[in-house]
Amino acid sequence: MHNVVATVIAAASSVNLRKGLAELGSGLAYGLAALGPGIGIGIIFGQAVSAIARQPETAGAVRSLAFIGFALAEALALIGFVVFVLLKYTG
Amino acid sequence: MHNVVATVIAAASSVNLRKGLAELGSGLAYGLAALGPGIGIGIIFGQAVSAIARQPETAGAVRSLAFIGFALAEALALIGFVVFVLLKYTG
Amino acid sequence: MHNVVATVIAAASSVNLRKGLAELGSGLAYGLAALGPGIGIGIIFGQAVSAIARQPETAGAVRSLAFIGFALAEALALIGFVVFVLLKYTG
Repeated sequence: MHNVVATVIAAASSVNLRKGLAELGSGLAYGLAALGPGIGIGIIFGQAVSAIARQPETAGAVRSLAFIGFALAEALALIGFVVFVLLKYTG
Repeated sequence: MHNVVATVIAAASSVNLRKGLAELGSGLAYGLAALGPGIGIGIIFGQAVSAIARQPETAGAVRSLAFIGFALAEALALIGFVVFVLLKYTG
Repeated sequence: MHNVVATVIAAASSVNLRKGLAELGSGLAYGLAALGPGIGIGIIFGQAVSAIARQPETAGAVRSLAFIGFALAEALALIGFVVFVLLKYTG
């Protein structure tokens, strides 16, 4: 009887280990996926404010291209959040 | 009797190991997610002060775009905090 | 009888360990694959807004080349997402 319990426990242990490794991976996935776009978005808006100061009359074109670039970089981090959810909450 | 105790201990160990791995992942998630926006926000305001010094009359436009860029980059780090809470406090 | 069950359980354990490590790798794969393009896309659009402000009449050519460069950098992250799916969902 005890042996059966021990066997079931051993099976549960390995499931826990696998789940823990998947959760470690899910944290790394979002963290790393946010790192790059965080720097990239900073570069985009940094150059945009610099450009507006140099040529105020181009502010409209600069601002619209900066927001498009922001959206495209941000998408990478949001896909990273999807990866986090898939790794943490799906089998 | 001893065997029953050992079995219970083994079960608790694997739960602890899984929790530890998830907590390692949660720390890495926020840490990495804060790293990128930290650099990016620095670039935004660094370029903004430089731009205002070069063209003081554009200070209003530069400042508003710098704050918009800051909010968008900061959001990535705040999502990283949400990931940390989900990994640490939910099953 | 017990030995047979224990053997089956041991086999299941190693499958779980392998699966967990694959999930850890899948998270790292997408995270790292998004890191670089996140920075790269920021540099592309940052330089593009700067170029448009300096020579507004070249805005069309600048914008189309910026989008081509974006698509080529983004492709790397999307391949990273394919790697994530292959590691997590295929044997």
